[in-house]
Amino acid sequence: MLSSLENRARTGNAPPVRIEVLNTGTELMLGHTLNTHGAWIARELFPLGLTIARQTTVPDGEAIRDALVETVERADAVIVTGGLGPTSDDLTRELTAEVLGLDLIEDEAAMRSIEAFFALRGRPMADSNRKQALSPAGADVLPNPNGTAPGVYVPPRLNGRANCAVFLLPGPPRELHPMFRVEVIPRLRALAGVETPPHSLVLKFTGIGESDFHQGIDERLAAVPGLEYGYCAHIGEVDLRLVGGPAAIETARAIALESFSAQLVSDDGSSLEETVVRLLAARGMKLATAESCTGGLISCRVTDVSGASEVFTHGFVTYANEAKKELLGVSASDLETHGAVSETVALAMAEGALRASGADIAVSVTGIAGPTGGTTEKPVGTAWIGLARKGAEPAAFKVFHPRNRHDFKLAVSQAALDAVRRVL
Amino acid sequence: MLSSLENRARTGNAPPVRIEVLNTGTELMLGHTLNTHGAWIARELFPLGLTIARQTTVPDGEAIRDALVETVERADAVIVTGGLGPTSDDLTRELTAEVLGLDLIEDEAAMRSIEAFFALRGRPMADSNRKQALSPAGADVLPNPNGTAPGVYVPPRLNGRANCAVFLLPGPPRELHPMFRVEVIPRLRALAGVETPPHSLVLKFTGIGESDFHQGIDERLAAVPGLEYGYCAHIGEVDLRLVGGPAAIETARAIALESFSAQLVSDDGSSLEETVVRLLAARGMKLATAESCTGGLISCRVTDVSGASEVFTHGFVTYANEAKKELLGVSASDLETHGAVSETVALAMAEGALRASGADIAVSVTGIAGPTGGTTEKPVGTAWIGLARKGAEPAAFKVFHPRNRHDFKLAVSQAALDAVRRVL
Repeated sequence: MLSSLENRARTGNAPPVRIEVLNTGTELMLGHTLNTHGAWIARELFPLGLTIARQTTVPDGEAIRDALVETVERADAVIVTGGLGPTSDDLTRELTAEVLGLDLIEDEAAMRSIEAFFALRGRPMADSNRKQALSPAGADVLPNPNGTAPGVYVPPRLNGRANCAVFLLPGPPRELHPMFRVEVIPRLRALAGVETPPHSLVLKFTGIGESDFHQGIDERLAAVPGLEYGYCAHIGEVDLRLVGGPAAIETARAIALESFSAQLVSDDGSSLEETVVRLLAARGMKLATAESCTGGLISCRVTDVSGASEVFTHGFVTYANEAKKELLGVSASDLETHGAVSETVALAMAEGALRASGADIAVSVTGIAGPTGGTTEKPVGTAWIGLARKGAEPAAFKVFHPRNRHDFKLAVSQAALDAVRRVL
Repeated sequence: MLSSLENRARTGNAPPVRIEVLNTGTELMLGHTLNTHGAWIARELFPLGLTIARQTTVPDGEAIRDALVETVERADAVIVTGGLGPTSDDLTRELTAEVLGLDLIEDEAAMRSIEAFFALRGRPMADSNRKQALSPAGADVLPNPNGTAPGVYVPPRLNGRANCAVFLLPGPPRELHPMFRVEVIPRLRALAGVETPPHSLVLKFTGIGESDFHQGIDERLAAVPGLEYGYCAHIGEVDLRLVGGPAAIETARAIALESFSAQLVSDDGSSLEETVVRLLAARGMKLATAESCTGGLISCRVTDVSGASEVFTHGFVTYANEAKKELLGVSASDLETHGAVSETVALAMAEGALRASGADIAVSVTGIAGPTGGTTEKPVGTAWIGLARKGAEPAAFKVFHPRNRHDFKLAVSQAALDAVRRVL
């Protein structure tokens, strides 16, 4: 009997292939090491049209056995990480052989490669390293140029127990990543019959939330044949991810843009700040910032973009009223009459930044981050955003994001950068 | 029959309690969002002496059902994250009720709280949000002050199917974290009979790395009776976490500080910026910043701290040479002779910021973030940090962090804030 993976490869049909990831390692369970394997492997598989059906993480040792038994019964291919080291709690190799009913034998080439690894570094090889050359009978040993632990590939149908392809890979990312690309990807592609991977597209929107797609758009997307899609919401941003044939993606894109073309930040994965820098550069324009409540977050985001120095020169962080007066020329009477968080002061800050910097566009923000400082009239979460441009009337608008301090700053910076994007 | 958790609570014995985490979300399976929940929850449980036995991640939708069925059979408590949103693929609530054999009923208080969330923001509530007020009959609804999705707690023995406590929590960290601390921790403590959790202490260090602890200190910590410890390394920071009796912790603390007291940022969990703001406030001093390559990150970090307005007034983001001249009075000849990334210019920037702001301390940074702009003499990753103080000689020093742009900015801002901390 062929496994589903082989069947898929032979018939050219593409039934869903079930790939699971099994991460092993006590350090992953204690929270000291962030498990990045799942996300990294998923990103490698995505362009092949393959996804991870389930990711399981267990501590070192016997817990691996139960998880392996369940996983090989359920999956077409399982990618196991970690537990290939020389110490007594590195049991992945032994437990895999046991679960699959295969003998462990010493692989000569692997043994020579481990010896060479130590010889090259002029270090004696510990006896415990010998077990790293063990491999289930009939399996492929996967060379590891970056460490002592070779990987292992057990093809499907090699064992009586399961019809599942099993990859054992070392835990350290610098060893796993190259081995995955060189040894795992080609085998998975062959097994899954992936010749031309499907297309994918990410549309980033700002100023709307995921729930705005549920006023009719979501239903229309669900009806597009051959389309897979999903949302990913961040603060002040929602990503719509599309996977499928070119026609399905084009249809889905048109549906989304029919309602939200003004809110589209990018269709190439670019962040809002990358889009703003690109638009400024394309127009040969320079931006200045005048920030109070965001404290420099807007300029920090702009300067996260490589090439920002072409379009950004001056940023003013005028946290105190004195700074607003001295650096931006905001009048004492405006501050007194209207308060620092007001339309008048936001406009004056933007105009002052434009003047003091010689930029083409200046954006300003002034608001109340909290947790203290709010009033009934101007509660915590209130911010005014001002925009001044050479040869145009300045404008200002109010936003309200009653969130914690960090998220408030992020949401307000997003609204300010989006205001710049819109006038570009 | 009592569940193992209740049994443990009643008898005062502490058999291993099996806690599992089940993360749901297609975005986690596609690799676009890094799953940080497992590590975060593990760190929260660590000081209680509790650990995660298994972490499982599945996509949105029906896959949740199988994973839930297996998990509630196996575990004493399961913490489920994600899938509590208003959309059609948010099915955690529904599938949990189904798996546990409980009816879903609308919770009045939850409904009012969701309505209030929208009313406060002046946005209409979509019909789809109504389902977020649904909860399995008899479960506790866990308030969510930071979003529309309330959490759910199903106590053990409420259902015929399983003897497992089930927590449903929202996926976004800014909603999950506070809910976990306020609603989940006390319930888990009660269930697991953790009365007096072991003492714990986090020592935050900067300017050293984890490997510095492996020059002898690690061995001495390992020999302290009754001590559990672990390291958590971030950019420009390493946390040493200690758990155990008061004597063990005091011994361990003394061992660490014997070598690294000058590098200690805090022993109460405070971040470097929180420490700097607290020290400035205690001395009644004000800080100004003059940033080139960090683009406002330093001022942004300082203003992340509530109360920053007492100690921070002026920030200058002088990305272009023109801005360094105009705002900080850096001389054209210094820029030409020494280059913008130089000791001379770092000193002039700090002195200029001190003068222009009237602050007591000013810190400046100028460097090469890359990926372009490096030379053999000043490679990408080079930065100069300047420090000027009222009534003291200014000083500057060089750091080198050849990392990606984002990490470079973070590492340099860390070094700059640490320089301020040290003179305080």
